[in-house]
Amino acid sequence: MNDSHLSEVITLARALIQRPSVTPEDAGCQDIMNKRLSALGFNIEEHFFVDTLNTWARKGTIEPHFCFAGHTDVVPTGDESTWQYPPFDGQIYNGMLHGRGAADMKGSLAAMLVATERFLTKHPNHNGSISFLITSDEEGPFINGTTRIVDLLQARNEKIDMCLVGEPSSRAHLGDVVKNGRRGSLTGHLTVQGKQGHVAYPHLANNPIHKASPALAQLSETTWDNGNEYFPATSFQISNIQGGTGAGNVIPGELYVQFNFRFSTEVTADELKTKVNNILQAHQLEYELEWTLNGLPFLTEPGPLLDVTLSAIEEITGTISTAETSGGTSDGRFIAQTGAKVIELGPLNATIHQVNECVSIEDLDNLALIYERILEKLLT
Amino acid sequence: MNDSHLSEVITLARALIQRPSVTPEDAGCQDIMNKRLSALGFNIEEHFFVDTLNTWARKGTIEPHFCFAGHTDVVPTGDESTWQYPPFDGQIYNGMLHGRGAADMKGSLAAMLVATERFLTKHPNHNGSISFLITSDEEGPFINGTTRIVDLLQARNEKIDMCLVGEPSSRAHLGDVVKNGRRGSLTGHLTVQGKQGHVAYPHLANNPIHKASPALAQLSETTWDNGNEYFPATSFQISNIQGGTGAGNVIPGELYVQFNFRFSTEVTADELKTKVNNILQAHQLEYELEWTLNGLPFLTEPGPLLDVTLSAIEEITGTISTAETSGGTSDGRFIAQTGAKVIELGPLNATIHQVNECVSIEDLDNLALIYERILEKLLT
Repeated sequence: MNDSHLSEVITLARALIQRPSVTPEDAGCQDIMNKRLSALGFNIEEHFFVDTLNTWARKGTIEPHFCFAGHTDVVPTGDESTWQYPPFDGQIYNGMLHGRGAADMKGSLAAMLVATERFLTKHPNHNGSISFLITSDEEGPFINGTTRIVDLLQARNEKIDMCLVGEPSSRAHLGDVVKNGRRGSLTGHLTVQGKQGHVAYPHLANNPIHKASPALAQLSETTWDNGNEYFPATSFQISNIQGGTGAGNVIPGELYVQFNFRFSTEVTADELKTKVNNILQAHQLEYELEWTLNGLPFLTEPGPLLDVTLSAIEEITGTISTAETSGGTSDGRFIAQTGAKVIELGPLNATIHQVNECVSIEDLDNLALIYERILEKLLT
Repeated sequence: MNDSHLSEVITLARALIQRPSVTPEDAGCQDIMNKRLSALGFNIEEHFFVDTLNTWARKGTIEPHFCFAGHTDVVPTGDESTWQYPPFDGQIYNGMLHGRGAADMKGSLAAMLVATERFLTKHPNHNGSISFLITSDEEGPFINGTTRIVDLLQARNEKIDMCLVGEPSSRAHLGDVVKNGRRGSLTGHLTVQGKQGHVAYPHLANNPIHKASPALAQLSETTWDNGNEYFPATSFQISNIQGGTGAGNVIPGELYVQFNFRFSTEVTADELKTKVNNILQAHQLEYELEWTLNGLPFLTEPGPLLDVTLSAIEEITGTISTAETSGGTSDGRFIAQTGAKVIELGPLNATIHQVNECVSIEDLDNLALIYERILEKLLT
C-alpha cells in the first residue's frame, strides 16, 4: 500500500494496529508512542506490573492538569479466517481503516498523540500540564493496569484535574455521544440449596429450582431505583442459570444463578445487596451468595471539561452531542475516584469486539482536530 | 463357599447374580432359567430384538392364564472397588445375599422358578396356564424388551389374565407393600426463546430467564389433580434447567428446562400437555416444547389376584400388606395395557441401584413360598 497520502493520524493508527497487542500484551505500542512523547519533552515513566505495561507520561508541573487516557491492548480476534481483511494488517478500503483495535482504541491513541504534537508546535508555552495514562490491560482482568497507576499517583499526591478517555463513545456520527459517567457493575453468584432425590419421590427431596423461581421472578421485576438526570434506572439481569444432573429422573440438590447489576448513583452496592438478601429470605430460600464489585459508578457533572468538549465537537463536525452514562464500564472509573473530571470521547463503537472491526479515516482525522481544539480551549 | 446348605432358591439366585448381565446383556441368565422351564414341560420361545433377549415360556393352553414377569438385566455397578463384596460374586454374609441384582430382581426370578417347580411337582394337573415373560432390558431404553413380547402376543391373540411382576416392592418387611398400579410418566423438553445481548444493553436483548421464571413458578405450584383412592396426586418436577453462555456480561438467547410428570388415572397425558401450554402462553412465552411419554398409568383394582396375593403374604409372613401405586415405573404397564390384571411383589427395595445391593436370604425363601401359595390359590 502506498501510504504517502495518508495523514499522520492514520499512519500512526496503522502502525499501532499492526502490533498484535492482544490483552495483556502491549507488543511495542507504548514504545512507539513514548518515543514521540519523549521527543516533545514529556517525562516518561514505564511501569510493568505482573503482566501489564503502563505508561505515565507528563509535560509540565502546574494546574490545570489535563490527561489523555487509554489502552493499547485489544480483545482477541476470534477465527482470523473469518475477517475480510487480516486483523493485524491495518488495511484501508473505501475510506475505512480495518483491524482489531481500529475503533477500540488505537485510532484514538493516534489522534491523541498527533493532536498533542500539533498543539505543542502551535502553543509551546501553554498553561498547565498534559499527561498520558496508557495501559496494556483494560480489556482483561485490568487489575494491573490503570488502577495501579492511579494508586501510584495518589500515593505521591499527584493530581489529575481533567481527563479525556479515548474509548469509542460515538453511536452513528463522530461525537454524537460523549460519556460523562459510567454505571457501576455488581455481580452476584447465588447457589440455592435443596435436597437431591428421585423424581418419583418428591416428598423425600426439595427442589431448589421450584423454590427459587418465584424469587427470581420477583428479582427480575423489581424496580431498584428510577435513575436520575444523568443515569438510566439501575438494571438487573440474570446471565447464567444451571441446575440438574442431566438425568431426567433426578431432582437436583442445588441451583446456581449468576446475575449482574448496572447501577446508578441513586443506589449503593450495599443497598442492592441488602435488597437482594431481603427478597431471597422473604422466599425462605437456603442459599449462599457471593458478590463481585466490578466497578463503582462515576459521574462528571456539567462544567468546563464537558462544555469545552461539546463545543469542540460542534465546531469541527457540526454535530450536537449528548452526554450519556449508558453502556458498559471503562477505566475512567478509576481516574474519576481521585476527584478528576472524566469525559470519554472516541469514534463509532458499532464494530468493537466483533469480526471486521473498522473505523472511518475521516472520523479519525476529525477526532484529532477535536482533541486539539479541546487542548486549546483548556490550556490557552 | 460351601453352599450345600443353601436352599434351591438361594443357589439359583447366586447363579444368576454371578452372570454380569448389565443392561441390555442377558449373559446367559435366561439360558439357566429356560433349561429348567423346559424340563418342566414349558414351551420356550426366545426372541432376540436388536440388543435384547426376551423369553416367552408357557405351559398349558387354557384359562386362567397366570404369568410371572421380570428382567434379568441389572443396572451398572459404578466403581466396583467401592463395593464391600464384589458385585458379581453373590457372597452371603450375616443372612444377606450380596450382589448387583440381588434385590432387583434376580432373587425374585429364582423364587418364581423354584415356586413353579414345587407347585408343578405337587399339582401336575393344575387348572389354567402358567407363563414366564422375561427380558434383558427393563432398566435401559426398554424398547426391545417386554413391550415387544406384548405386541407379539397381541398380534396372535394370546391373552394373559393375571400377571405377577417380581420387582422389589417391599419397603421394610417382605410383602408390606404390593404394587397394584403405577403412575404414568411424561417428560417435557422446553426451550424458551429470548434475544441474546450485552448485559449493559438490556433494551436490545430479551432475557428468557426473566420471562420464564413466573411461568416456572406457576407450574411448580399448580395442582394438576387430587389423585384418587389408589393414586397420589399427579406430581410435577423440574429436573434440569440451563441458560447462559458462561460469560457474566451476556444476556442469553435461550433457556432450556426439562421437567417430568408422574401422573395418575385422574388425568391424561394430553390434558397435562394442554394445561402446560396454556400456562406458558398465558405468560406470553415464545418457546418450543417436545414431549416424551415414558409410560401410561395402570391400575389393578381389588379382585382375585390382589386378594390372593395379600392373603398369601399374610399366611406366610404374618404381614398385613398395603397395595400402593407410589414410586417409579415398571414393565407392568405394558402388560396391563392388554387388559391383564397386574400385581408387583418382590423383596425390599432399599438398596436397589446403589452400591452394596443386597437381600435377605430368609426373605427370598419366604418369597418363593408366597409365590407358590399364589399359584395354589389361583390354579387349584
